[in-house]
This record gives sequence, structure tokens and C-alpha cells, in this order.
Amino acid sequence: MSVSVAILGASGYAGGELLRLLLDHPQVTVTQVTSRSHLGEYVYQVHPNLRKRTTLKFSDPAQLQPVDALFAALPHGEFQKEVDRYAGLATYIIDLSADFRLRDAAAYERWYGAPHAAPHWLGKFVYGLPEFHREALRQARYVSGVGCNATATNLALLPILRAGWLHPDQQVIAEVKVGSSEAGAEGNIGSIHAERANVIRTYSAFGHRHTAEIMQECGLKNVVLTLTSVDLVRGAMATVHLDLPPGLPMRQLWQAYRAVVQEHPFLRLVKEARGIYRVPDPKILAGSNYADIGFEYDEASGHLVAFCAIDNLMKGAAGSAVQCLNLMMGWEETLGLEFPGLHP
Amino acid sequence: MSVSVAILGASGYAGGELLRLLLDHPQVTVTQVTSRSHLGEYVYQVHPNLRKRTTLKFSDPAQLQPVDALFAALPHGEFQKEVDRYAGLATYIIDLSADFRLRDAAAYERWYGAPHAAPHWLGKFVYGLPEFHREALRQARYVSGVGCNATATNLALLPILRAGWLHPDQQVIAEVKVGSSEAGAEGNIGSIHAERANVIRTYSAFGHRHTAEIMQECGLKNVVLTLTSVDLVRGAMATVHLDLPPGLPMRQLWQAYRAVVQEHPFLRLVKEARGIYRVPDPKILAGSNYADIGFEYDEASGHLVAFCAIDNLMKGAAGSAVQCLNLMMGWEETLGLEFPGLHP
Amino acid sequence: MSVSVAILGASGYAGGELLRLLLDHPQVTVTQVTSRSHLGEYVYQVHPNLRKRTTLKFSDPAQLQPVDALFAALPHGEFQKEVDRYAGLATYIIDLSADFRLRDAAAYERWYGAPHAAPHWLGKFVYGLPEFHREALRQARYVSGVGCNATATNLALLPILRAGWLHPDQQVIAEVKVGSSEAGAEGNIGSIHAERANVIRTYSAFGHRHTAEIMQECGLKNVVLTLTSVDLVRGAMATVHLDLPPGLPMRQLWQAYRAVVQEHPFLRLVKEARGIYRVPDPKILAGSNYADIGFEYDEASGHLVAFCAIDNLMKGAAGSAVQCLNLMMGWEETLGLEFPGLHP
Amino acid sequence: MSVSVAILGASGYAGGELLRLLLDHPQVTVTQVTSRSHLGEYVYQVHPNLRKRTTLKFSDPAQLQPVDALFAALPHGEFQKEVDRYAGLATYIIDLSADFRLRDAAAYERWYGAPHAAPHWLGKFVYGLPEFHREALRQARYVSGVGCNATATNLALLPILRAGWLHPDQQVIAEVKVGSSEAGAEGNIGSIHAERANVIRTYSAFGHRHTAEIMQECGLKNVVLTLTSVDLVRGAMATVHLDLPPGLPMRQLWQAYRAVVQEHPFLRLVKEARGIYRVPDPKILAGSNYADIGFEYDEASGHLVAFCAIDNLMKGAAGSAVQCLNLMMGWEETLGLEFPGLHP
Repeated sequence: MSVSVAILGASGYAGGELLRLLLDHPQVTVTQVTSRSHLGEYVYQVHPNLRKRTTLKFSDPAQLQPVDALFAALPHGEFQKEVDRYAGLATYIIDLSADFRLRDAAAYERWYGAPHAAPHWLGKFVYGLPEFHREALRQARYVSGVGCNATATNLALLPILRAGWLHPDQQVIAEVKVGSSEAGAEGNIGSIHAERANVIRTYSAFGHRHTAEIMQECGLKNVVLTLTSVDLVRGAMATVHLDLPPGLPMRQLWQAYRAVVQEHPFLRLVKEARGIYRVPDPKILAGSNYADIGFEYDEASGHLVAFCAIDNLMKGAAGSAVQCLNLMMGWEETLGLEFPGLHP
Repeated sequence: MSVSVAILGASGYAGGELLRLLLDHPQVTVTQVTSRSHLGEYVYQVHPNLRKRTTLKFSDPAQLQPVDALFAALPHGEFQKEVDRYAGLATYIIDLSADFRLRDAAAYERWYGAPHAAPHWLGKFVYGLPEFHREALRQARYVSGVGCNATATNLALLPILRAGWLHPDQQVIAEVKVGSSEAGAEGNIGSIHAERANVIRTYSAFGHRHTAEIMQECGLKNVVLTLTSVDLVRGAMATVHLDLPPGLPMRQLWQAYRAVVQEHPFLRLVKEARGIYRVPDPKILAGSNYADIGFEYDEASGHLVAFCAIDNLMKGAAGSAVQCLNLMMGWEETLGLEFPGLHP
Repeated sequence: MSVSVAILGASGYAGGELLRLLLDHPQVTVTQVTSRSHLGEYVYQVHPNLRKRTTLKFSDPAQLQPVDALFAALPHGEFQKEVDRYAGLATYIIDLSADFRLRDAAAYERWYGAPHAAPHWLGKFVYGLPEFHREALRQARYVSGVGCNATATNLALLPILRAGWLHPDQQVIAEVKVGSSEAGAEGNIGSIHAERANVIRTYSAFGHRHTAEIMQECGLKNVVLTLTSVDLVRGAMATVHLDLPPGLPMRQLWQAYRAVVQEHPFLRLVKEARGIYRVPDPKILAGSNYADIGFEYDEASGHLVAFCAIDNLMKGAAGSAVQCLNLMMGWEETLGLEFPGLHP
Repeated sequence: MSVSVAILGASGYAGGELLRLLLDHPQVTVTQVTSRSHLGEYVYQVHPNLRKRTTLKFSDPAQLQPVDALFAALPHGEFQKEVDRYAGLATYIIDLSADFRLRDAAAYERWYGAPHAAPHWLGKFVYGLPEFHREALRQARYVSGVGCNATATNLALLPILRAGWLHPDQQVIAEVKVGSSEAGAEGNIGSIHAERANVIRTYSAFGHRHTAEIMQECGLKNVVLTLTSVDLVRGAMATVHLDLPPGLPMRQLWQAYRAVVQEHPFLRLVKEARGIYRVPDPKILAGSNYADIGFEYDEASGHLVAFCAIDNLMKGAAGSAVQCLNLMMGWEETLGLEFPGLHP
């Protein structure tokens, strides 16, 4: 009774992570994985962690056979061109690219610099962040992936949003620090180890495309998203600054955070008075679908610093996508996502 | 029908890794975890990856209650002092320390610099490396852990040993490179990040205690084990040099390696002609119980370079220990050890 | 005609860096270096880069002999207790600790949690950042060191301050990312490599003591200084957010930055349209006294993101201190500080 | 009275390091730096550490003007094709590539897989390692560079070679661990940070071309050179195994090492009983021309483990090349090479 699944673009990092998760998923059978650049190779030659776990080879996306569920992890802009063809081959689609994250075609064009190739499809996709759209996802056939920097920021803001303390016009400054896997398997000259090791490199001060996902999901107009590369492979850490309404007592903050982590299985509140791990830290989240959130709040000034740490390839990409599949299929939300991460 | 398990010394790295594995093991219930230094704290305060996974607290080892199986991850020398008491509390014992790895009391005293506190117990323990002692482990009640550097070397040599090509008198030079988690959670001044990052530090040229485990398990007299710290948290990589009997053709090497990886579920042969991952590399093994082996062989000279990469806390400590439990209990050998590692 | 110099607390990281610089300084002879914890050891046993460069040994600070200039790199709070004694032994004093950075005794008590031991001395010290106090330093006998996080932030703000665009009441959010050498040579359990590698750990959201130095030097009342540890040994990177007065055109920003880097020999403007190094990055500053500054500015909204990258032990500590000595003595400002840093 | 110098191939890592050294060299004026791929760019756009240090731009190697001394840092195989033309333009030549390292044309062809393009030039070049050829270098007009892995191994063996304890037929196993800058600025897919971070990757078990330089310089026939990539940018560490003649007492080893480090200004003996830095470690050598050597010796068996740590771009490339220039010109050997490296 297992569900057949194919992955388009499985030789990239997000695709490989999807494959790792789905091969061990108790309800799923992976039937096809495609890659144009590695056509005919065993998947374990590209993703060496999967040696002895599968004898699948990369196939041609043009030869895709019908499946129950299709995951697409193609470069941005590719999937929208063929969404009609793929929708004819799969009952359920989860597209990890940025193609269907924004609901508004004009916003898409503004942020991505070109008109959308299939604007009539935009409204059919649900934004694939379960902590924001769980009920809609249970009914969805088409789901988009999420931007990893947007996800770290959105989850940092979720308790504040749910508590009704976010105002559309207020300024939110999100400082996100990220690892090198975010750049993808292709890399560029700045990605080679000798140039990329030991950096603290603020490569985008504002204007990054993921900003649009924060604005859309949190209903904000004034978001400054700043991205800084640090020396790490997996991980994204959002430190988000905003000013709360005057007079809000600390205990209400605690209530807002506790309510959110009780409701969502993959959210954890990290706010300890002692020990090494007093705040969220992506160090311990590699391979895990948890998003660790936390905060510091100055009652006198109302200034809040909200934290969220994730593995950018998991909760920021493949993990959330599998979590969406679980919801779409009516399975336990955490199925196949049990790995808790490592210490140290 | 699950088996009750306790872990002594669960606040260290190997103890924490055991706990991570056993909490998700389908046949096991962890009932107690002890730590003198963290008495009364939640385990997730020390091992933050386990937050939301357990509400266990560290208890006092003096208060240990009877259990089916006891894992001990105490500092070397501690467990042997109380082995009688602990044997009265647990049907099965797996001791990860070095206390019961050597079968010979004289060898123990020579390598560890002090007489053994319970020499009559030495013969009751089976050396806990399933690839060397699978059948004995199925019958065992008492099992020792393994040294991580010894394990990387022993598994690198296993195909050669099984093929009968190792001679007791021949010189074997094992160059093992290791990550910082090997030093344990206590650390020392040389372990702080500013001093330990970016190192290539050959801290033991020969004479390390793990040498004794290689000599014992491979039946060798002349082993040079050299240990070098590199900038990595988890991982041990053995590069082992030896000269094979003259005239041995390459294809026999291939046969020897293929036979071994087919027999053992956690061994994989990595020897690719192209791609990034052509040889074993601990990078992709963090959290995994796999040991990736490989070799390069010069047919003309008979010189062999044998490789083995492991996660020192998994196959080199906690992972092998759980694999032993599975064998002792008659369960599937790979149970609870399915995590394949991450890429990248 | 060389000047005799002693260093108190020379076994720490800042003290060691001072020693490296002063041993090669053409106008200086280092006559004494003290350390209580390493008394009698050769300095190269603690600072192994100095092997074959000096045969100095660590001596007892209680035995300090008169010198022309005294550098103090003691733990915070120590030097103020004996400032009178030391002032009797040295004509010039540069104290790298936080003891004499704040001019106001009440501010000191508020930020450091205890009354100052020698408040009458506070007014005699000049804050040791040449880019802010060059003329005063030329006349000074007593100079304080600087906080590294404050320095990165102050230098990021300097062009804006000089242009008159900073208002005392405006909010400034300074996100500083730092390497592990900032924690000092003593370390703590959270500093050991296995726990400290791969982190992105926001250990102080606001309220850090260095905030007081930014408020004092930039004349600001509302500064949020947020500190995040990343995986790097040397380096501090400030990403500073603020809103500029409406209508300020981009070209005026360029003018403000160019003016500042032309005036100060150790400031460089990094703002390239292409290549790998388009923005300031501490990666290339290890061992260098340069502070690389840069900015991104949104003309429409007036939002400015100002950057500054430094080596926390150089421009953020020992390098600025030697630069101050050069000014105090009337020497060329860059003397002994010529090392440009490495690529890659 | 300064000497004019040009650098061919100055956009690579070794070329950039040469440029850094020569810009600060008191006897040298750099007049031209060439790069085909970065033609017309400022050198600081590629080597950002040199911003504010030079306004040189990369020029076309075809336009090279006559100079006193020419450094070539071209890809292997390029310089030999045009050595006649370049010899017409420069009185002194130092070629950092592998083109003129081997004296024997047959050996060149065997190790490099193609006949040499200018075999009659081979005998005119002196191998550019001053610790092996100081007197010849003082008379030389043409000097080759050195292989970094060969240099670490050769210097590890130098005390043994000088003492007359090396026999041509004995087996020498050199395990060299290296950083990512060795791969050069071009990189390849395996060099991108996400794939290259956290590795321990033995990419060459034997047969590497640098082996030929060890055989030539040490007069050995049986050298196994094994190369392992670790997570570090700059550094090469050789751990060399060999068996010494029976009966050699430890004190003679000490004498042999002490004699060598007294003779050579850039060699240091590191062999401490305590402290963090008891053995050579490239961590503290970034940017320095020192080679730190050391050893462990088992008097009973005669087994020696010899160490050498270097910065592969300095003592293993550009630093040795400048040291050679100093000798060729009759200058102080250490001129322009004073930077001692950093701690931590």
C-alpha cells in the first residue's frame, strides 16, 4: 500500500536529502530519480551516504513515468515551464524551487525579474510550511517548497505573529547566518574551500528574494533580510530584531512561545539559564527537521530579539517537504523525520 | 516485551550517543541514565539534540536499579572496580571503556600501567567488534567496547586478515587521523577551539594504548599506530601501510574486499574511478554506523595502503555497542542503526 | 635609542599578539613579559610562533622593573587595583583591559556591576582608538585599549558620524559575529572544540558591556549590540543597521566613506561590483591591523547597512594598542603594523 | 639600487603570495604582474589583502618587459615551452612550477607522462630548496621551485640524511596531510566548501609526482608518499616513517636534529615535554617561512617517526622562492620573510 514517489533533480543537495528521507520512509517507494548531469550513474556515486541503501540510478526527466507523488528539486524557473506536463504524470506535486512560493504573479515578477511562465497555477499551490498552513496542506494536491532563510525568519516570528503583536508596517530586521550547502552543489569560484573557509561574508544586505516569502507569510511590508555566510556546511540561524508594543510583560512572551512549541511537533523552545546550549544553534540540527526557537526581550524598551535555528536542507527544504507529504497523505506528521541530530 | 536498559556515564559523548540510539531503538526502553557531574539535570540540557525526545534526568550511579542490560561509558578504570556489583544488577553488560578489551592481564598492565582490578573477569568479556566476533557475541553476556582508532585499523585490515595474508611478524604502520570528539567532553586546555581549530597535530607517534587492541585482534606483533588530530568533530580515518606477499595479483585483492563487505552489513567498499567520493571519508559518516573501507595496491612492489573511515562515536564506540546488543539479544543486527549519514 | 617596553599578562592571546608585534618593532626593546600562570617558562612554549625569535621568559609581575612604556593585558578589573604602583614604574601606560575605557565612573559601575577602584584615574586615560582620538593620543601618557566588538561597530559607524548623520536618539542595531579567540586563552567548557566547532550561537542578544563603548564614542543612547559566535579563530564582523535622514543621495554616502578611508591609514573601503571579495570579510585580516569597511544603502527607504571587518586581536586589541604607542611616541603611525594579512 | 622583479601567473595562490612578500621586500621593486584570466584588473581585486598596498594591475604575459628577476608561477608545463624567450628578458629566473625540478629528462617523462619541452635547460636549474642547495643557489641564475609535499618530507628527513643514516634502498613512508590551498585557485567540483569541509580524504595513496623530488633530493629508491586532504586552508604536515640502523642511541638523534636547526635559519626543532604545542603543527605557520621539525624515536626497535610542518604556500612555494632570491642576490637569507606566524 506504499505510495510511489519520483524526485526530479535528485543530484543536487536538496534532492539528495529528499532521497535520503524517502528511502527510509515507511509508506513510500522511490521509483525514479532524475538528473541530467549524472544520467545513468548510481545515486550513491553522487550521494555517497546512500551506498548500500539503494541501487537506483539517475534517469532522464524526459522519461518520467506516472507516479503518485512527484518532488521537484530543479533550478529555479525550470519547473514552471513544464508544470502542465508534470501534473499529468503525478497526483501530488511538491515543488521545492521558488517557482510557486509567491501567490501573487506581480510580486513574483518584481522579485524574480521576469514574468511567471504559468501564473494561473500560482493559486493552486499551498506554501509548504506546515506551521503556517497545516490545515490547507491536509487538503492540498500542489505544494511549494520554502526558502530556507525565509523559513528561519518566519518561524522566529511565528509566536509573535500568532499573539497578534506584529503590525504590517513595523520594521523587522532579520539577520540570517548560513552555511555553504545553501549555495547548492554547483558552486562558483567563491565557493571553493580555500576562499569560503573562515569567512564572515555579508553577501546580501537587503533585497534577497526570500524577503518576499517573509512579507507574504507574516503580512509585513518593511522587512530587511541580511544574509551572511559563515564557515559551516549545514545550518541557518535567524536573529530577528523588532520592537514590540509598549508595556508587554515578559511572562506574555513566555506564554506565546510555549503555546507555539506545544502546538507544532518540530518546534522546540531553547532558553536555558545555564549549560553550553542556552540558545538555538544549528550546530546540533544537521540532518534533523527541528526548528529551535528562542528569544531575548527587554521589557523596558520593548526590543525583542527572536531566534530560529534550522538545518537549511531539512526544515529549510527537504524536511519540510516530506512533512508536507505526510500531511497531504493523512499520515503521522513526523513520519520518516525522526532523526534528532547529533551532539557534539 | 521491550528490554530495559540503563547507561552509566551518560553525560559524556559516547554515553550521549548511546542514549540517542537507544531512545529510538524499537526493542529497548531506557530506564535510567547516570551522571555524577550532571546529577538531577534533564538529559537534554547536556545533549540538546534530545530535547522533546525524552524527559529523563541524570541519576546517581549509586542508586542504579536492576535492568536487563547495562551500558557503561565511564572513564577508563572505573568500571572494573565495581564490576561485581554491576553484574548483580544486570543480566547483560556492555562496557565501552578500555577495562575489558584485552584478554590478557599482563598485557593490560603493560599497556595501562597498573594491574587490573578484576583480572578474573577479563576472560568473561567478548571483544565487542561484530565483524571479528559475531558468533561469540550471539552467546555473550559480557561484552567490551572497542577503541575507535583500533577499530578503524582493524576493519582496514580485516579483508587482508581473512584472506590469510597477514603475518604475525610483519610491520604494519597505521596512520589514523581523528576529530576532536575523541578527546571526550571534559577536554583540556589544548582542546579549546582557538588552539584546536586548524591543527594537524600528530599527538602520538607510537605507543598509544589502542595499539594493543590491534595486536590482539589481528594477531600482530609489530604495529606502529600514529595518531594525528585534525579539524573535525566526528571521524576517524585509518590509512594503513603494509607489504603483501610477492606476486599477489590485484584481482585477488578485489575478491578479498568484496567478500568482506558482502558478509558484514555495516562495511562498504569505496573504490570509485571518478566523482568526488572515490575513497572512504569520515565526512559523510557522522551519526552513521558504517565503516567505509578501501585500498590502493601496487602490484609490482606488493605495497598495500588500506583505508577505513568511521564515525569514532558510532562504529568506534556507541554504534558498535548497540550492534553488539542486537546480536546478544538475537535481534536484527542493524536495528536502531539505520541512519545513513549526511551528504554534504 | 629604542624604547623599553614591558607587557603584563603576556601569556594570554592579546598579550601574545602584543609581544609578536613589539619584538619586530624597529623602535622598541621588550625587556619584560609577565605571567603568573606560566612563570619561568619560555614565551615560545606558550606562543609557539615566537620560537627562535626570543629567549624571553615569563617573569613575576610583582618584580616589574621600571620601563619607558607598559602594556597591560590583565583580566578585567586587575589593573585598576594597582594603577598607582604601575604608574610609578612606567612613563607611558597602555591598558588593554576594560578598566579605563569609560570616562564616566557611574557608567562604569552600571555596565560592570561594581564601583571602579580608581575613579580619579578615569579622566587621565584616552580611549585608544586612533581613528576617533588621534590628536589626543599624540599628547597622551595613559591610554586604554578598546573592546573588539565596540571597535568593529564604531569603525562601521565612523563615516556616518563624521558626516553628521547620526542622531543621539536613533536606534542602531549592531550584529557582530566573532571568532573563538575573543573568549581568551582560559576558555570554558563551551569553548572546547567539539562543542564550539560548527556553531552559530547568539550568546548575547543585548546588554553586552561593549555597548557602553559604542554609546560613549558615537554619542548614541539606543544601541542594540548582538553577538554571535561562529566557527573561526580570529575575526569580528559588524553588520550595523540604521535609518538615515530622508533624501540622502547615494553619492553622498560614497563621499563620506571615501573621505574617511583617505584620512586613516588602516581603514579600507571594500565595495566591489564583482569578484569574490566584494564586501569586508575578516577572513583575509588575520594578523593585520586593517579595518575593512563598506556599506549597502537603500536610497528609497534610507536604510543603511554598514560593515566593518577586523581581526579582533589586532585592530580590536593589540594592533590598535601598538598604533597608539606609535602616536604617543611621535613615530610613523603604521610602524611595526605592516603585515597585510593573507589570501587565501 | 633595488632589483626589478616581474611575476608571471600572479593571480594564483602562489603568485599572490609571492606578490605579498615582494611588495614588502626592502630590496625589490615589483614592476609587472601578469594574468591572462584577470587581465586589466587591480591585483587587490583578486588578492584583497593587498588593497591599499599597491595599485598594480595584471598585465599580459605576452607584453613582458625586461626585468632583473622573473618569478614564474604558471600552471605546470607552460613555462618550459617559452623558457628561451623568458631567459632573454630576465637575468635571473625562479620558476615555481614543476617544470625544472627534476634534473633527469627521463625521470621527468616517467613522472609527468610526456617528454620535456626543453630538456637541455634541465641541467641549468638548481632545485630551489636552500636547506639542500645553499651554496649552489648563491651562484645560480636559474632556480626551480619546490613541491610542497616533497618539501615537508625532505625537511623531515634532512637531519637523518645529513647524519648519514639514510640508505638508498630503505623504505620510507611519508604521510602528508594538506590544506585546500594546495589545490590552487581554480579548484574543481570536489573543492567546493560543502564537499571539501570536514574531510579526511586520502586522495593519493602513492605515485604522486612529488615523490620524484623526494627520491632525487634524498637519494632514495623506495618512497611511499601518501597525501590526505584535511579541513584547513594553509598547511602541510609530513609524518615520515622509517627504520634506523640498529643500536642508534637517542642522544645521537638529538644531536642530529640540533645541528640542522642551528645551521638553517628557517628550521626549528619542536619537541616539548608539556604544553599545547609539543610537536610541529602547521596551524601556527600560516604566512610564515618556518619549517618546524621534530621526531619520535623508539630506541629498542629503531623505528623513527619524523615530522615536518610548513605553510604549503610559503616554505612549500613562495617563501622558499624568495629565500632563493635572497641567496642568489647575496642578501641576508631571511630578508622579507620575517613574519613569524600567528598564535592562536
